[in-house]
Amino acid sequence: MSSQGQNTGRRPELRHDPVANRWVIFSPARAKRPSDFKSKSPENSNPGDNSSCPFCIGNEHECAPEIFRVPSDPNWKLRVIENLYPALSRNIEGPCEEKEDMGVPARAIGGFGFHDVVIENPVHSVHLCDMEARDIGQVLLAYKKRIQQIASVESIKYVQVFKNHGASAGASMSHSHSQLLALPIIPSAVSARFEGMNEYFKKTGKCSLCEVQAKELLIDESTHFISIVPFAATYPFEMWIIPRAHSSHFHEFDCDKMVELGGLLKLMLRKMSLQLNNPPFNFMIQTSPLQIVPQLSGAGGFEMGSGCYINPVFPEDAAKVLREVNLPVAG
Amino acid sequence: MSSQGQNTGRRPELRHDPVANRWVIFSPARAKRPSDFKSKSPENSNPGDNSSCPFCIGNEHECAPEIFRVPSDPNWKLRVIENLYPALSRNIEGPCEEKEDMGVPARAIGGFGFHDVVIENPVHSVHLCDMEARDIGQVLLAYKKRIQQIASVESIKYVQVFKNHGASAGASMSHSHSQLLALPIIPSAVSARFEGMNEYFKKTGKCSLCEVQAKELLIDESTHFISIVPFAATYPFEMWIIPRAHSSHFHEFDCDKMVELGGLLKLMLRKMSLQLNNPPFNFMIQTSPLQIVPQLSGAGGFEMGSGCYINPVFPEDAAKVLREVNLPVAG
Repeated sequence: MSSQGQNTGRRPELRHDPVANRWVIFSPARAKRPSDFKSKSPENSNPGDNSSCPFCIGNEHECAPEIFRVPSDPNWKLRVIENLYPALSRNIEGPCEEKEDMGVPARAIGGFGFHDVVIENPVHSVHLCDMEARDIGQVLLAYKKRIQQIASVESIKYVQVFKNHGASAGASMSHSHSQLLALPIIPSAVSARFEGMNEYFKKTGKCSLCEVQAKELLIDESTHFISIVPFAATYPFEMWIIPRAHSSHFHEFDCDKMVELGGLLKLMLRKMSLQLNNPPFNFMIQTSPLQIVPQLSGAGGFEMGSGCYINPVFPEDAAKVLREVNLPVAG
Repeated sequence: MSSQGQNTGRRPELRHDPVANRWVIFSPARAKRPSDFKSKSPENSNPGDNSSCPFCIGNEHECAPEIFRVPSDPNWKLRVIENLYPALSRNIEGPCEEKEDMGVPARAIGGFGFHDVVIENPVHSVHLCDMEARDIGQVLLAYKKRIQQIASVESIKYVQVFKNHGASAGASMSHSHSQLLALPIIPSAVSARFEGMNEYFKKTGKCSLCEVQAKELLIDESTHFISIVPFAATYPFEMWIIPRAHSSHFHEFDCDKMVELGGLLKLMLRKMSLQLNNPPFNFMIQTSPLQIVPQLSGAGGFEMGSGCYINPVFPEDAAKVLREVNLPVAG
């Protein structure tokens, strides 16, 4: 058991909120004792120092079990491992059953799932945007391989790939890494996205992802992908990378397309880093767009209450700024 | 014009994202020039010092125009004023029309709306939880009065009342205040809440807000209200205050109920402050529950990507801790 997880006897659980119509993961392994929960000053939440990083090459014994590495020898370039503090447990039996709890007919199911970490490279100081396009392609191919492995588990309904960079974007380790969280439910935001796109198609006969590719919103493009600031961007300088051809599943891209996508992703990360002063950021792979969100403004009570966001930067202005970022030649 | 708003020629606008099926507010008055957007260190985002606070009594001339004060004499106890950097503009003509923009059939409407600030008391160092229950009741009655005024404007569809306390919860001023944002659209999270409650009622014949009032989740109660940790709490130590009787509109509570609600709100704020070490927090008035969310854990890529949240604290554990907080007698 982890030293963080002190709620002994508690197993992770998913609960459905009938008011917001949303699932929430309850994850005791990630908690302190509830009575020890205190507000932290920002200093305390900094990622630790680099001297004893378990993600660095040579420290593999300090990590949770490995799932695979590339290449499969001691001189690895990337590793996929279990998360030491998983939000969901791979050791609870799936498929899960709904249960009635505390006389409340809210739905709750056992917290079965996979929570993995992709260590993107062996060297502590190398960030994703510093890597060669083909090595970023290898990271994307590792996501693909792991998604394919997990997709064979019947009770898993959705795999969210995401990266948190910087403490305020949710990263607890500064060594460059990303995560996969495989869920026994389809999150309501994902269903809403499908339904939204379906409804748009029914109304207009058009694909809403093709429609967002206006010239004013374009940042850059490659043979099979384009990068844009979406017309109704939720966050300032939010970027989407979208395939030119209709393609609903990320893990269906072949090796060449993954390397090409890696190149465009690298370009976007470098533009963001140079223009916005290396901000904390998140990226998420949606079943279609690969979405990058620099953390430039926080969500407050209005956003939490209404689900409506305030963005101070018009997308066509952000796209123009990002188009015009002149990257130095090296890298 | 504000000194912050440098995007001259830009007016606020609401845009609809057909993929997420969500409205986003674009608010140039709150922006720097897009090219000046940089990541800030946490130090830079601290609320300013107290020496020249425009919200303090005597500095009224430094504020945007006043809407009303209580009582209406120089020795006021609270003031409702316009926000100096409004997310939406009261000077754009409503009702708004949909328009086609940049060849994209996404919906965009003019950013008409009201964005007001409630200065909760005249003294800089006094926080909401320090105030007498009847004075907190007066703040709630000010929300009610302002909602009633705004509700008479035909093109306004929803008023979100919210409070951000602490820089990391989104507060830019440390003097105790809350905000009202009146929108020309119904946010999708609000529609989803109505639809979720409707669907639950159709399926079970029961009100989902009555159903969440399990004993294990109770924190405290008064004659007409109870406070709970919701069964599927999205955030650690999230609290809801719910009326015992079915009551869909906050602004329909009478004066006595507002003072009673003020007392229960004060108790919850004091318990949270004592137990969680005065955390940054948000509260939001939903058309039914009054919701308080301490900011103890940040949202990252997983939450942004999936709309699914990870909460390390089980609600019945949080409710127990909060029930057992022993407040000092004074205050």
